[in-house]
Amino acid sequence: MTRKFNNVYVADSYTIAGVYEKDGPIADYFDLVYDKDLYYGCDTFEKAEEKMLSNSISKLISHAKLIDSDVDYIISGDLENQIAASDYALRDFNIPFLGIFSACATFGEGLYLASNLIEGKMAKNIIVSTSSHNMAAEKQFRNPTEYGAPKKKTTTFTSTGAASMLVTSKKSRIKITSATCGIVQDKGITDVNNMGAVMAIAAADTLKRHLKDLNIKPDYYDLILTGDLGIYGKEILIEYMKDSGYDLSRNYNDCGLILYDRDKQNVFAGASGPSSSALTLSAYIIKEMLRGKYRKVLIVPTGAIFSPTRAFQKDSIPSIAHAISLEVSE
Amino acid sequence: MTRKFNNVYVADSYTIAGVYEKDGPIADYFDLVYDKDLYYGCDTFEKAEEKMLSNSISKLISHAKLIDSDVDYIISGDLENQIAASDYALRDFNIPFLGIFSACATFGEGLYLASNLIEGKMAKNIIVSTSSHNMAAEKQFRNPTEYGAPKKKTTTFTSTGAASMLVTSKKSRIKITSATCGIVQDKGITDVNNMGAVMAIAAADTLKRHLKDLNIKPDYYDLILTGDLGIYGKEILIEYMKDSGYDLSRNYNDCGLILYDRDKQNVFAGASGPSSSALTLSAYIIKEMLRGKYRKVLIVPTGAIFSPTRAFQKDSIPSIAHAISLEVSE
Repeated sequence: MTRKFNNVYVADSYTIAGVYEKDGPIADYFDLVYDKDLYYGCDTFEKAEEKMLSNSISKLISHAKLIDSDVDYIISGDLENQIAASDYALRDFNIPFLGIFSACATFGEGLYLASNLIEGKMAKNIIVSTSSHNMAAEKQFRNPTEYGAPKKKTTTFTSTGAASMLVTSKKSRIKITSATCGIVQDKGITDVNNMGAVMAIAAADTLKRHLKDLNIKPDYYDLILTGDLGIYGKEILIEYMKDSGYDLSRNYNDCGLILYDRDKQNVFAGASGPSSSALTLSAYIIKEMLRGKYRKVLIVPTGAIFSPTRAFQKDSIPSIAHAISLEVSE
Repeated sequence: MTRKFNNVYVADSYTIAGVYEKDGPIADYFDLVYDKDLYYGCDTFEKAEEKMLSNSISKLISHAKLIDSDVDYIISGDLENQIAASDYALRDFNIPFLGIFSACATFGEGLYLASNLIEGKMAKNIIVSTSSHNMAAEKQFRNPTEYGAPKKKTTTFTSTGAASMLVTSKKSRIKITSATCGIVQDKGITDVNNMGAVMAIAAADTLKRHLKDLNIKPDYYDLILTGDLGIYGKEILIEYMKDSGYDLSRNYNDCGLILYDRDKQNVFAGASGPSSSALTLSAYIIKEMLRGKYRKVLIVPTGAIFSPTRAFQKDSIPSIAHAISLEVSE
């Protein structure tokens, strides 16, 4: 379903990116870059991800001139099993925690929930956070990287970073105007190296419902962005939408193609991971909206909500996507 | 924080339990028991858990005389990595999905979110679901059961079952009157075989905040229930509360001690898993409230939101608890 909001705003955000992201096209937009290595002074990749996430929250709180008790909730999730980066990072805050999981669409689910809670006057200030870490994800979802297994060109590259956004009832220049909650899709795809194809189905379903519910066409938006379909998934989504009579050829892109430069960086089909859409939105899109480049943006974080255990058991891969509409307010 | 609600009700619920639970004291209260084995006709434990969860949702929808489009959201999570039981079960429904993770406190987080969304008039009908499966959890969190490793007496026994509850804005006899969102706690405990001690800290924090925010004493409730502290965790919580001036000796119990008979069943310190509190509340407590045994019940699902990976890395175990107050309405 699509919900319209009248009282939901983005007050501030804080982004931290890693070594690969600092070589990408939007590196200058991040608030902080950890560029030495992938450990950030920690002894494991998982602790490094926790540190990035925790710092993105604490720096957002201080940047927004708040204290812990001003924040009603932190809504956070990530790719680690048991959303461990979020669980462990939240130890640093005396703030009620709502843990969510929607794989790489997690930031979308967080913004959806935060917007609903604020519109319903059940909260005033909510921090929505997510993170991913290339090596923590590779370890868990693929193979130990020491194996050096060759990758298919449809593979995506998990981005490293953490993003936190302050969603609030207090009027600001960026308004969240509507949002569409995802419905799980599964068209029987089993190729764990082609998540773009898996998730394009969910993106199409959510996007079509969003446009239909609001009775608008894609050109209502200056920019429509999916989360991490990559170059091949992007083409599939354009085809799906064309089959349903929607033209995405002019104002559509994928965050996975914005975060990295595929011509210069060895990232296969593009970026993936919850931080792909979260970093792109929080660092780049919001700033360009404030500068006047875009007035209306629809972001559709996409997630393959699959389990490696179930993939080994030969099951297919479910996916989900949530759509969030942001507009520059008068 | 504690939120009070004026328009949130429990309309219906549906519970499915497994082979161990049917030998426990509240077996007669379950809507359905899968008592043949732990596979339920599936070829893996994970698919068995998906089947239980999916069936608990579909049977609740038909029992409540609804169709998919009457349900605004399904909010669900479970113990499997990537909350896979929920992700995969949701393929069977054309209903917007919000995936959550709060380990064994997941049902509490789901009820908290559903109550807020309904009180804020952002939804009318929400299904809150969770599941756990003893063998799927043992495989993932402990050791392959074939190893036959001896267990410590403080170990808990993951319950097998699925519960779905319909939370609604339409007046019914069971009202959700208030709820307190959990804050992550971590007092440095590293013993993965003593989750009762780990979670007692979170239960105490949430319970104290709940009582203080509402300016009530424990005897306001006919019954206070934690989710899965087990016999040792229960004693620790009583001590913690005593130290803060609260007497829990008369009206407090733990769902982990209700679901099984520790004298007759080999379940160590008691039941654990998200379905421990979800089955006990949805099947037993609600029915006894309707029969007049209890008028005011506070349920505090408890979760050790830890990662086995982080436990191997010698980190301590974070925990969380959410409190939900239910009252028989006039």
